[in-house]
Amino acid sequence: MRPLYFENGVLRLIDQTRLPEETIWHECSAYEQVAKAIKDMIIRGAPAIGAAAAYGIVLGMGEVKTKDRTLFVEEVKRIAEEIKSTRPTAVNLFWAADRIVNKVIENSGKSIEEMMEAALAEARQIDEEDVTGNRKIGELGSELIRSGDTILTHCNAGSLATCDYGTALGIVRAAHDAGKQIRVFACETRPYLQGARLTAYELKEDGIPVNVICDNMAGYFMYTRQVNCCIVGADRIASNGDTANKIGTYGIAVLAKENNIPFYIAAPVSTIDFRISCGTQIPIEERDAREVTHIRGFRIVPDGVNVRNPAFDVTPNRYITAIITDMGILYPPFSESIGRLKERLHGGGA
Amino acid sequence: MRPLYFENGVLRLIDQTRLPEETIWHECSAYEQVAKAIKDMIIRGAPAIGAAAAYGIVLGMGEVKTKDRTLFVEEVKRIAEEIKSTRPTAVNLFWAADRIVNKVIENSGKSIEEMMEAALAEARQIDEEDVTGNRKIGELGSELIRSGDTILTHCNAGSLATCDYGTALGIVRAAHDAGKQIRVFACETRPYLQGARLTAYELKEDGIPVNVICDNMAGYFMYTRQVNCCIVGADRIASNGDTANKIGTYGIAVLAKENNIPFYIAAPVSTIDFRISCGTQIPIEERDAREVTHIRGFRIVPDGVNVRNPAFDVTPNRYITAIITDMGILYPPFSESIGRLKERLHGGGA
Repeated sequence: MRPLYFENGVLRLIDQTRLPEETIWHECSAYEQVAKAIKDMIIRGAPAIGAAAAYGIVLGMGEVKTKDRTLFVEEVKRIAEEIKSTRPTAVNLFWAADRIVNKVIENSGKSIEEMMEAALAEARQIDEEDVTGNRKIGELGSELIRSGDTILTHCNAGSLATCDYGTALGIVRAAHDAGKQIRVFACETRPYLQGARLTAYELKEDGIPVNVICDNMAGYFMYTRQVNCCIVGADRIASNGDTANKIGTYGIAVLAKENNIPFYIAAPVSTIDFRISCGTQIPIEERDAREVTHIRGFRIVPDGVNVRNPAFDVTPNRYITAIITDMGILYPPFSESIGRLKERLHGGGA
Repeated sequence: MRPLYFENGVLRLIDQTRLPEETIWHECSAYEQVAKAIKDMIIRGAPAIGAAAAYGIVLGMGEVKTKDRTLFVEEVKRIAEEIKSTRPTAVNLFWAADRIVNKVIENSGKSIEEMMEAALAEARQIDEEDVTGNRKIGELGSELIRSGDTILTHCNAGSLATCDYGTALGIVRAAHDAGKQIRVFACETRPYLQGARLTAYELKEDGIPVNVICDNMAGYFMYTRQVNCCIVGADRIASNGDTANKIGTYGIAVLAKENNIPFYIAAPVSTIDFRISCGTQIPIEERDAREVTHIRGFRIVPDGVNVRNPAFDVTPNRYITAIITDMGILYPPFSESIGRLKERLHGGGA
């Protein structure tokens, strides 16, 4: 279930605000439409946002009027910055946008048409690498799952959050496909209900047993030994392993540790922000009050009462059992395992 | 804001499923209506349920046809059992019903009219004692609150959960009335949203600053030092201090301990079940799936996906800083402080 397709100069996004009631494809033919779709969470999930941003810049390149190659590159940079300003927490957005910009710069000696071709090829590569990476995450992670396990997950780190297959749900899919008898507890994930709406929908479609629970029930099911492990996605991982993910992840991680239940992060290496040393450096987006005060258009908080709406929290590395990436499973101490990964990626001098 | 009135043989309950949108008084003139109102959560909150049950038995006594005093007492016992079977977790229900039955037995040598008068007087006393007790809880608990504090609470342990004034919110009210500058974070409390609907409404009416947050945000605000203490009510407290309360309480308590934030239980002594030694003996009610799958009539979980809906959890005593009762503040070790309280109440031999 891919959440996005780029064909004939149009980026089609499945409208994730309307799922599962309605399957509506939202078409973007200009980069500003992509920026708005990211901001409005029509597309969400760190890896999916990254790919959408990449295609969005490609769309924007088609809108640039100038024939001057230097000005063209400047325009691409401006468009990339605009797309990057839509949401502050997930690093894949910046990572993917920067890949496109760098590819354009790399080809800036060539014609504008060639720069555009190179950018589109890079966007397609980001997209394909994500799917390949998720299958690798699934393959590696499913080794940690035993038949009979009940896996607790939060938010949606599934096909819909990525270019396909999913990270946390990729592991669930791989374990299920390997014939393991597993079951999932999906936290509903207020305020936006990605767990109740999207994770439940994906798993139901795949025939994987799932129970939706309210977020505040996670502790009860861990304490009563009804959960064997927790697997969630990530929006940004610092160099020491501190991980930003959907609001509520921190609480689940603390409860898992308190109950001696393994707590796994599943994410591609593109989610690691090697430039920051720890989680306090990750900006936390606070979103519109209406997401909390209203559910599906119905007011649940009395008029005139204030609310807060941080969209993410940071889970300190000490609560994380392992980080399952497309380049291997990272174990504590994460500063070291992530440091070694950085060397593999960038070489000793980076 | 009293949630119940007994006048002229009618028990009037404010319909808490409709607040805050509508203020509808639900009238019960037969005990079965009271039983249904408790089951359907038209009235909820452990102390309020206790008082409603007491008045409900009084209503039931008026419905008994027999003139035989022995048969009459048997009928009262049967009615009490029926009311007690409505909800399994909160002990105040059993405690209040037993007080009425015992009062009837105590007066079983007298006329049926005198038994009924004694029962009504006992129900009124339960009601009044609750309000007096809550004011005492408020007075004692507010000493633990400093001006400038932000207090996190869960569910509704306010006027609406009691006969008036509230337990956890009684402390908030007393601190506010003492001129302390305080602020409340009210967890919305899925699935029934008692925090978003009832706690926010009560505090707004009283002019006490309140922010509603989603349940899964509690950890974030504790970790970022935006909460100074947590105060919640209780549905049943075991002899060792283990406390059953609204689902999600356990998670808040674990997060509070992890972040060195005091976690207080506020409850009248009637909430202590001296007959059980620890929390594993408390039955946890699992309620209807529809409370989770639908919010205010709107489906949020895909059709065909299963859900779980435990209504309470148990917080082990090690996470509780103190239990604030109408007979004093209890500190750990709770087996000892609750043991001493039991001696004060029942004498050494009980």
